[in-house]
Amino acid sequence: MTQIAFIGLGHMGLPMARNLLKAGQRLKVFDLVQAAVDELVAEGASPASSAADAVRDATVVISMLPASRHVEGLYLGDGGLLAQIVPGSLVLECSTIAPDAARKVHAAAAARGIGMLDAPVSGGTAGAAAGTLTFMVGGKAEALEKARPILAAMGKNIFHAGPDGAGQVAKVCNNQLLAVQMIGTAEAMALGVASGLDPAVLAEIMRQSSGGNWTLEKYNPWPGVMENAPASKGYSGGFMAELMAKDLGLAQEAAQATASSTPMGALALQLYRLLLKQGNGKLDFSAVQKLFVE
Amino acid sequence: MTQIAFIGLGHMGLPMARNLLKAGQRLKVFDLVQAAVDELVAEGASPASSAADAVRDATVVISMLPASRHVEGLYLGDGGLLAQIVPGSLVLECSTIAPDAARKVHAAAAARGIGMLDAPVSGGTAGAAAGTLTFMVGGKAEALEKARPILAAMGKNIFHAGPDGAGQVAKVCNNQLLAVQMIGTAEAMALGVASGLDPAVLAEIMRQSSGGNWTLEKYNPWPGVMENAPASKGYSGGFMAELMAKDLGLAQEAAQATASSTPMGALALQLYRLLLKQGNGKLDFSAVQKLFVE
Amino acid sequence: MTQIAFIGLGHMGLPMARNLLKAGQRLKVFDLVQAAVDELVAEGASPASSAADAVRDATVVISMLPASRHVEGLYLGDGGLLAQIVPGSLVLECSTIAPDAARKVHAAAAARGIGMLDAPVSGGTAGAAAGTLTFMVGGKAEALEKARPILAAMGKNIFHAGPDGAGQVAKVCNNQLLAVQMIGTAEAMALGVASGLDPAVLAEIMRQSSGGNWTLEKYNPWPGVMENAPASKGYSGGFMAELMAKDLGLAQEAAQATASSTPMGALALQLYRLLLKQGNGKLDFSAVQKLFVE
Amino acid sequence: MTQIAFIGLGHMGLPMARNLLKAGQRLKVFDLVQAAVDELVAEGASPASSAADAVRDATVVISMLPASRHVEGLYLGDGGLLAQIVPGSLVLECSTIAPDAARKVHAAAAARGIGMLDAPVSGGTAGAAAGTLTFMVGGKAEALEKARPILAAMGKNIFHAGPDGAGQVAKVCNNQLLAVQMIGTAEAMALGVASGLDPAVLAEIMRQSSGGNWTLEKYNPWPGVMENAPASKGYSGGFMAELMAKDLGLAQEAAQATASSTPMGALALQLYRLLLKQGNGKLDFSAVQKLFVE
Repeated sequence: MTQIAFIGLGHMGLPMARNLLKAGQRLKVFDLVQAAVDELVAEGASPASSAADAVRDATVVISMLPASRHVEGLYLGDGGLLAQIVPGSLVLECSTIAPDAARKVHAAAAARGIGMLDAPVSGGTAGAAAGTLTFMVGGKAEALEKARPILAAMGKNIFHAGPDGAGQVAKVCNNQLLAVQMIGTAEAMALGVASGLDPAVLAEIMRQSSGGNWTLEKYNPWPGVMENAPASKGYSGGFMAELMAKDLGLAQEAAQATASSTPMGALALQLYRLLLKQGNGKLDFSAVQKLFVE
Repeated sequence: MTQIAFIGLGHMGLPMARNLLKAGQRLKVFDLVQAAVDELVAEGASPASSAADAVRDATVVISMLPASRHVEGLYLGDGGLLAQIVPGSLVLECSTIAPDAARKVHAAAAARGIGMLDAPVSGGTAGAAAGTLTFMVGGKAEALEKARPILAAMGKNIFHAGPDGAGQVAKVCNNQLLAVQMIGTAEAMALGVASGLDPAVLAEIMRQSSGGNWTLEKYNPWPGVMENAPASKGYSGGFMAELMAKDLGLAQEAAQATASSTPMGALALQLYRLLLKQGNGKLDFSAVQKLFVE
Repeated sequence: MTQIAFIGLGHMGLPMARNLLKAGQRLKVFDLVQAAVDELVAEGASPASSAADAVRDATVVISMLPASRHVEGLYLGDGGLLAQIVPGSLVLECSTIAPDAARKVHAAAAARGIGMLDAPVSGGTAGAAAGTLTFMVGGKAEALEKARPILAAMGKNIFHAGPDGAGQVAKVCNNQLLAVQMIGTAEAMALGVASGLDPAVLAEIMRQSSGGNWTLEKYNPWPGVMENAPASKGYSGGFMAELMAKDLGLAQEAAQATASSTPMGALALQLYRLLLKQGNGKLDFSAVQKLFVE
Repeated sequence: MTQIAFIGLGHMGLPMARNLLKAGQRLKVFDLVQAAVDELVAEGASPASSAADAVRDATVVISMLPASRHVEGLYLGDGGLLAQIVPGSLVLECSTIAPDAARKVHAAAAARGIGMLDAPVSGGTAGAAAGTLTFMVGGKAEALEKARPILAAMGKNIFHAGPDGAGQVAKVCNNQLLAVQMIGTAEAMALGVASGLDPAVLAEIMRQSSGGNWTLEKYNPWPGVMENAPASKGYSGGFMAELMAKDLGLAQEAAQATASSTPMGALALQLYRLLLKQGNGKLDFSAVQKLFVE
């Protein structure tokens, strides 16, 4: 049976690890926050006293960390975890980080005979809890086939985006587009309402027309249009604006690395930063609607 | 039987009038281009020698003109058509114009006891030919019920957007959002491809994820991703970039009238104008992709 | 001696008229606000009971009104003032309005044998009071020579921008550029201070370097950098943000009329509208700095 | 007498080193391009066979390299130059790099008892040749006093911007503002000319009014307005658009590091990238004017 090390038990990692336990997987877990470790131990995981301890007998290592620097700090360098992981193992790196950072870890893993996939997720904490995440995966197709049953315990859609780093690229492209159309939707809603339209009527017309997009289907930013959307609950829950700002920053990093011009994506980042400056970073990202109403 | 006057037989008006004829309606048609009139006369319409002649015995008047100034010029003023139309008739004004221009005609029509709907369409020339247009309608609900059978001969979806002018508002909101997500999609495609992804794979991942939108479903801007999209046919066919620029200009006019802030919509307009300056105004609006590739 | 009619005695018009009186000119003045008329009558002007009354014996007519619609409403149409003004007279239209609106009045004036200059000003209420306004003048050079002594009583710099409407064009181009560099300066100040620099040091370095501009010379937006700038007085005084938004709207109208692409100017307008939505429209336009600090 | 090591003899470094030689300084020089070394040796410098060789007896080390990675690569790490430089020496790092990269080198230098200033320049190759560069300096005031005579041989203005890294911050803030007002000026020129104004007249009006800025004084982007500006020489000479794009990228890196919102700066970067995509990266940065004319 596969021995899995799971490192990083935050808002996303903890429910992901829990779904693995529910699927009958054998987990050794580590986080700097002991309470998170304890919670999973109570549900059947083994506790690790350190990241190195977690990977000792593991053949699969999963990590879910906040940012590029944490991932590079964990795996790379002389004391890094890659030096501890058994060659032949498979690392599933699920954090959302810069494509270039992912590629660095890929290269270092390959040099030590360790397989790796960059496998960032979308779907938020709700998707993590429900086991319905989307995985966007970069790396070798054979490694993905090996990982598929494990990923399937945590998510519903598993896309092979391409070679090393491609999962991260797909994630930042998708999230940049999501931010652009969230703001575009918020602007259109505000303009229509200011011009005398009923928000629910306008939302429905655009949803069924060429303006249709995911935010109009699932996540309308105007309060009251969709009963269960964060906008109708004071912009609570969902995907925090400050996390969207982080992802838009990663997209700009990728644009810089490739000399790509992304005027809409760049403007989206700046508008989210304005929203954060107003103290709204912890609200759902659809709260960008607030910029456009008095 | 209803006598319909149809004024404006361009790329959109001509196929719309043809669908009315096919549905058995009685039409008297006028356009400054005699060939267009002749074409419909050959299919059963009566010719009118002027707009005034067209409306003489009509109880329904349909117009499909290029811009606000043509519509205001046609209907308003001392010699305007409203002075010729029989009170009690119904005007279906299908041009895409400024909401304020539509409201002016509404007011003048009401003052003379003439009913009016602003009923701009989306769906392009293909939708006009197939009779599958979407109508976004502003004006009284009773007037819309009276007009519904006539609109249904030309279109598939008929939305009542709200009071006078609301059809135009819904149209410009929808098209502004469409432009924003077309550019957002084009940027994401270019960024992903520059970062090493296969365009078809990236397009499919975003389509099924939170980046999903109408352009990814029907109209991908990257050449070769969708066989039948304009992008795969040299950006020919479809909806011309210069018409999108026109609609984005109307959106900015509506934003000015309501002091609305629409950073994404404003930027979309400026980017389309850059595209037009490069001589690409007659291409399909998905040609905005060209800005982002070398 | 020249008999001058002065119409529109607001924040700008009143001190401008006062400077004409001080220069010994003979004025008949009109405004909808009687108190403004009374104030100038106490200083030597004759009161007019209406705009038509003001122009009765005038050979020069000066107007200073809020917007295009007021100017068009005053001069044009059957009952418009051009029908009352003595042919051979000269109209100095000093309002800031759309170039196309100015050109309409020019054409109508010419048709009646009345000379006209569009002569919008910059310099704000302080410049109006001090008689140091800048006039940007559109129209015939001969008319400008005739007007020069009168303009010189109200302003310091008089530029002949070009033919009919050119004064308005120069004004909107200048003010769009001013807004862009005010925001650019505010962004640079916020970025530098957030990165650890002293605001006064940074301001001085940029002022003396290639980033130098009028706002760094006269009008730094960071509080405390310039003792007498509005930024150091709670953003009071100066040129109101809502007036800058108005001018940026005129610039977009000119861009629409000429299919010009102005991404920075368009973004500046949207950012000023965000500022207005936050309730800051009556503050000086350098208050755009507030968007970029917490 | 001070022994100076000069590393990096490119378009900027070579004329800077030459001015030090002219001022009678003793230089040992190194570059990967031997021809550059030979050229200075012919003018009195000593040749170094490597960077390490150059610094052997030096008490002042000057470096002028293309980007952050070159500077970090040169100085940091086990084999880095800081391990070779005599403690008590002073490093004058004149490259334009990320403030955070500069701070890393500062910290490593301090740890080894080596003084350091980040001292990026503005003024371009012309300023480097003429010895009229502007230095924006970050680091300790005492170190700057020690360096001043050396900097004075290469430049005219020497600003102490603040603590470690502050020179780089001042540089990126200034250059971001410069880019914003160059584009703002280009937009205003294009809008005015499209509206019928003479470019030289418009340029002069704005230069003397509140739109005044350095580009209008020294560097008008419209061809023919200023005889000696790059715009009048096919946009040749001056400061290349691709270097402005680099600096704007550094500004965005600084904005990311401080969560600053800079909508104008971000848009400027994207517009320069569009210009580069059109193959204009080697032209002077005022060639951004080309985006706005047909």
